[in-house]
Amino acid sequence: MNSRRPFFALAVALFCCALNTSHELAAQATAPLPIMPLPASAVPGDGEFLIDGHFGVALEGYKEPRLERAQTRFLGTLSRETGILFAYHSAETQPHFVIRTKGPSAAVQQVGEDESYSLKVSADGVELSAANPLGTMHGLQTFLQLVRVTPRGFTVPVVTIEDKPRFPWRGLMTDAGRHFIPVPVIERDLDGMEAVKMNVFHWHLSEDQGFRVESKVFPLLQQKGSDGMYYTQEEIRHVIEYARDRGIRVVPEFDMPGHAGAWFVGYPDLASGKGPYHIERHWGIFDPAMDPTRESTYQFLNLLIGEMTALFPDAYFHVGGDECNGKEWDRNPRIQEFMKAHQLKDNAALQAYFSGRVQKLVAAHHKIMEGWDEVLQPETPKDVVIQSWRGRESLLEAAKRGYRGLLSNGYYIDLNEAAEKHYLVDPLEGIADKLTPEQAASVLGGEATIWSEFVTPETIDSRIWPRTAAIAERLWSPQNVRDVDSMYERMAVISQKLQYYGLQYQAAEEVMLERMSGDSNPEALRVLASVVQPPKGYDREGLHEYSSLESLNHMVDAVPPESETARSFGLICKKIAAGKATPEEVQQAHDWLVLWRDNDAKLQPRLAHSDITAELVPVSHSLNTVAAIGLHALDALGKSESVSAEQHKTDLDAVKAAEKPQAVLLLKVAPSVELLVNATKVQ
Amino acid sequence: MNSRRPFFALAVALFCCALNTSHELAAQATAPLPIMPLPASAVPGDGEFLIDGHFGVALEGYKEPRLERAQTRFLGTLSRETGILFAYHSAETQPHFVIRTKGPSAAVQQVGEDESYSLKVSADGVELSAANPLGTMHGLQTFLQLVRVTPRGFTVPVVTIEDKPRFPWRGLMTDAGRHFIPVPVIERDLDGMEAVKMNVFHWHLSEDQGFRVESKVFPLLQQKGSDGMYYTQEEIRHVIEYARDRGIRVVPEFDMPGHAGAWFVGYPDLASGKGPYHIERHWGIFDPAMDPTRESTYQFLNLLIGEMTALFPDAYFHVGGDECNGKEWDRNPRIQEFMKAHQLKDNAALQAYFSGRVQKLVAAHHKIMEGWDEVLQPETPKDVVIQSWRGRESLLEAAKRGYRGLLSNGYYIDLNEAAEKHYLVDPLEGIADKLTPEQAASVLGGEATIWSEFVTPETIDSRIWPRTAAIAERLWSPQNVRDVDSMYERMAVISQKLQYYGLQYQAAEEVMLERMSGDSNPEALRVLASVVQPPKGYDREGLHEYSSLESLNHMVDAVPPESETARSFGLICKKIAAGKATPEEVQQAHDWLVLWRDNDAKLQPRLAHSDITAELVPVSHSLNTVAAIGLHALDALGKSESVSAEQHKTDLDAVKAAEKPQAVLLLKVAPSVELLVNATKVQ
Repeated sequence: MNSRRPFFALAVALFCCALNTSHELAAQATAPLPIMPLPASAVPGDGEFLIDGHFGVALEGYKEPRLERAQTRFLGTLSRETGILFAYHSAETQPHFVIRTKGPSAAVQQVGEDESYSLKVSADGVELSAANPLGTMHGLQTFLQLVRVTPRGFTVPVVTIEDKPRFPWRGLMTDAGRHFIPVPVIERDLDGMEAVKMNVFHWHLSEDQGFRVESKVFPLLQQKGSDGMYYTQEEIRHVIEYARDRGIRVVPEFDMPGHAGAWFVGYPDLASGKGPYHIERHWGIFDPAMDPTRESTYQFLNLLIGEMTALFPDAYFHVGGDECNGKEWDRNPRIQEFMKAHQLKDNAALQAYFSGRVQKLVAAHHKIMEGWDEVLQPETPKDVVIQSWRGRESLLEAAKRGYRGLLSNGYYIDLNEAAEKHYLVDPLEGIADKLTPEQAASVLGGEATIWSEFVTPETIDSRIWPRTAAIAERLWSPQNVRDVDSMYERMAVISQKLQYYGLQYQAAEEVMLERMSGDSNPEALRVLASVVQPPKGYDREGLHEYSSLESLNHMVDAVPPESETARSFGLICKKIAAGKATPEEVQQAHDWLVLWRDNDAKLQPRLAHSDITAELVPVSHSLNTVAAIGLHALDALGKSESVSAEQHKTDLDAVKAAEKPQAVLLLKVAPSVELLVNATKVQ
Repeated sequence: MNSRRPFFALAVALFCCALNTSHELAAQATAPLPIMPLPASAVPGDGEFLIDGHFGVALEGYKEPRLERAQTRFLGTLSRETGILFAYHSAETQPHFVIRTKGPSAAVQQVGEDESYSLKVSADGVELSAANPLGTMHGLQTFLQLVRVTPRGFTVPVVTIEDKPRFPWRGLMTDAGRHFIPVPVIERDLDGMEAVKMNVFHWHLSEDQGFRVESKVFPLLQQKGSDGMYYTQEEIRHVIEYARDRGIRVVPEFDMPGHAGAWFVGYPDLASGKGPYHIERHWGIFDPAMDPTRESTYQFLNLLIGEMTALFPDAYFHVGGDECNGKEWDRNPRIQEFMKAHQLKDNAALQAYFSGRVQKLVAAHHKIMEGWDEVLQPETPKDVVIQSWRGRESLLEAAKRGYRGLLSNGYYIDLNEAAEKHYLVDPLEGIADKLTPEQAASVLGGEATIWSEFVTPETIDSRIWPRTAAIAERLWSPQNVRDVDSMYERMAVISQKLQYYGLQYQAAEEVMLERMSGDSNPEALRVLASVVQPPKGYDREGLHEYSSLESLNHMVDAVPPESETARSFGLICKKIAAGKATPEEVQQAHDWLVLWRDNDAKLQPRLAHSDITAELVPVSHSLNTVAAIGLHALDALGKSESVSAEQHKTDLDAVKAAEKPQAVLLLKVAPSVELLVNATKVQ
């Protein structure tokens, strides 16, 4: 059998078979609809609404071109979801889907605008109503997620949904500094954000490794600091328009005074050191930092911030402020003198001085400053928004002192953690009871962050999706929506749907496996790919020396951050170890173990043909070893036989050895086999 | 085992393992390089050129922006092929790939321009030289096709290639009239054309079912005749520029006097009947035709041709002229009177009169008229180019009478024929010896044609690719390049590569299977999909009543026109029947038959869940039956046992029944099982 995405298949099959009988209808009434994020309220009814070639949408009430484009886009997505070519039917269509929008939203989208909507699906028609286009667009996405194929055709179940978000700020931060992310990729990810009702695209635009925006005032920024890879101002305007069309704000970030090495290649006078400066080719925290002591620095920043605040209409402007190590400051006698003269006792104080000056520039350009934890200092003005990469304690402190804040700690999707880990991080958990309701409301929401050391335009989609849907649900749905199993089931459905919305990560994985093997049907390689994962957290950097010149075209780059097969196998193994597995589950575990054990013989002869797959020789061998041990354990458990203490130790040692990273990969089924081995009786 | 694209895997694996040893080197010298079309001359050498992050390209000699864009595009494709991010290395790169272009090509690409190039790959570097950018661009594509993964990394084998096309006109006609094909799809297909060195995009822009170009002079053409689906003039200009960047001419076709029903919705006075007219929703030949007798018709056409010849810079202008049934003319007394008055003895004569008038209009706008066979009449001016949908006899007649011609008969890729069938059609075969060399040279080449009754933007790529590569080879490579096995082996490699060039047909098939089943891992459905094919020729229309409103989202739409699995199985069965199969081949046939036999039990419970898969119930059952019979036959052959005459007849009847179309599908492995059954001894 082919082991790709079995859990997805299961979940989708469950959903698609639902509603076939009245018995299943009753079951369905208690199971959540396969929507992410789950709505605030959904009351299912009887029956279903049929989507066929005569389906049409009518806009009533307030109208604007953006709504018409949303309608067109909605029909396009529905067409990809169903294969029905609605446009050819335009003349013959009688709209059964009526949209009523009361009025406009703000000309520039604001934090906290009404995003609520009401969606009523009956067997005869659909009514969607909202206060403004933001709610309308969210409601359209909910409808698209409800479409499924049935024996009658494509239908949506009868349901009444009243929905609104829990937090007003639900963001995705994309780091275009370390690896450049071209506009078509940004567009895809904005499409994905729209699908899961996220509303802030935080665009990290400058780094030690690249300055990514065209500046007309200081053109050497992009000319010398980007390897030719930057967004033109026209492209920026296009992305802002594209995002606005999807109910998404665009907040730019220009990181300073640290993480700014690429600025100094063109403008070394901005820096605190002697230079010469170059585009950084490694990852980490580096010494170059802006010189906070010279007036010319602020004159430069005033002009640049003026140019960039004119380009980006959003009310917020992010100035970074994270991880400045201060070493260039320590080494510069002039800066040391300045600190003495101004009674700045340490580098934190110097950075606070810098932040204060920058905040005044940002405010002078009529924007609200946003920054990472470090910008919160004793004198920081109260309207500054604090984005916490450090944790909820920072948010708590900020809120108590009257600042608004956002959580990103726990939402670092570049670290390849399981979706459930992010899912269970709540911005208010553990701090809500220490805040007044007003203070709690100053926690605006959160942002998933995709730092791009280890992502490229090819792999970024699979690093963001589908796991970001779990964070989107955390920030939109009621606080008590926390059932991990339900989340995974629904995420499987959404993951499939995201293909119709334009995301291509599943196809990209296949192309990468074909490329690395030179094989157009790399079956055995797929089996291996289905059970390995990238290492978590910052482990990858310790396992291999990486630079920005490294090709990210290896197995670790191709596979998703979370192996669905390994997760499903793990759930079954837990049940088996607890003596609670069904015979079907035991059989499934057995079939997988046989597949994995036998895979090595098929795969090994091929691995040496490519320098990219050669590193997988020990990984494939480990899978064989672990699977064979798993089969013995399963056999012993089935027969209630015991194994010798010696055998037990040998097996356990082998499995534990296989749990260590090889070829920068984790063999994710090994810990589950360890469960089986530990469940067997030892003589 | 998973049966997807096994032959592809085999071919690619063969290629990728080549050159590893000197023994293999020797073998490789005789096997053709995996290039399509095969070059006029290729002399392999020893060793290989390594592509790593330091790879760079230098342009020498003549330069123009188009060449710089070609260079950028080349590096982008190479980056997708290898996963190496070349742009980040720009500062550190020392170009080992030198391009020397002598001079410019014509400002508007002409028929018969020099397209030759010379490509020399050594272990140390690459030299590409050409007379003009057309040859340069072809050479870059050849290089991309040579890239493969090896134990050393991505390399290109040492080789010296001298190449030029056999025919100057190598086209793809795309029918955007019956189903609208959006610009991004056109772009993808132009990318594919560039990859296989085709140089004419013939754009069929008007039909009974749609008028697809924005006319500013006669806006009701698109406003009433397109369901809102048409190309703006800005989009047309973009496509022309996009094509020119790839060495491709764009020839527009406005079909008249028949196949023009959509024009009449907005301008009924153009027509010969009383109307009212509507956009046609069915397929076939319809009565509406332009009125050739009124001067107002020519006044209209003069203005429209003036507008369109200004929009399309190519020297040629296609006016269709096919399949006018004349029924509206027969029914119109005024037209009948006109024919008498002008001594036009029949409708052919009337159409000849019309064509003559139109030709003068086209010529007055400084364009050369092109038309289908029907425009060749006694008085037709000698510069008119005849495109033959009828066959080589038309070409022969045209050439003898001094006309230039193109072959499309035999290249109708919408008819779902095997690639080899198209491949073996040579424009000059059987007629060359009846022509002087000068007359033979008037056969300019040919065009693959994708008529769009049964294609949508989603499925068109799989209908065009990879089979069109076989036609591209026929038109480019030397006449004696006709080895079908070699063609299929190389086409498998190119098919995989086309993914890196942006074509997505393999991913599209997977998405369609998931959609029709509602299953994100439709394993058993994939097995069925791998052995069925659409019916050939015009059979599909007879098997189901289709209209343009029909959703093309069924199995027949998802699967490729040619099943690679069935083709491979067929080759093995032929060998088995002839007693020439190896034990490995017999084992492969056996494994497949077991997979197919057992698939039905897995698939049947799922088929009823969707109204799109429900029709597959009998097809899956037939596969089970046929596979079981095949296994018995294989068993009997292996043991040299004989079967009873009764059993033989029962089996044969069952297999033959399974060869008949079901659910508008051919079970393509059934005829091969019939071979096995017929090979067994009968008592």
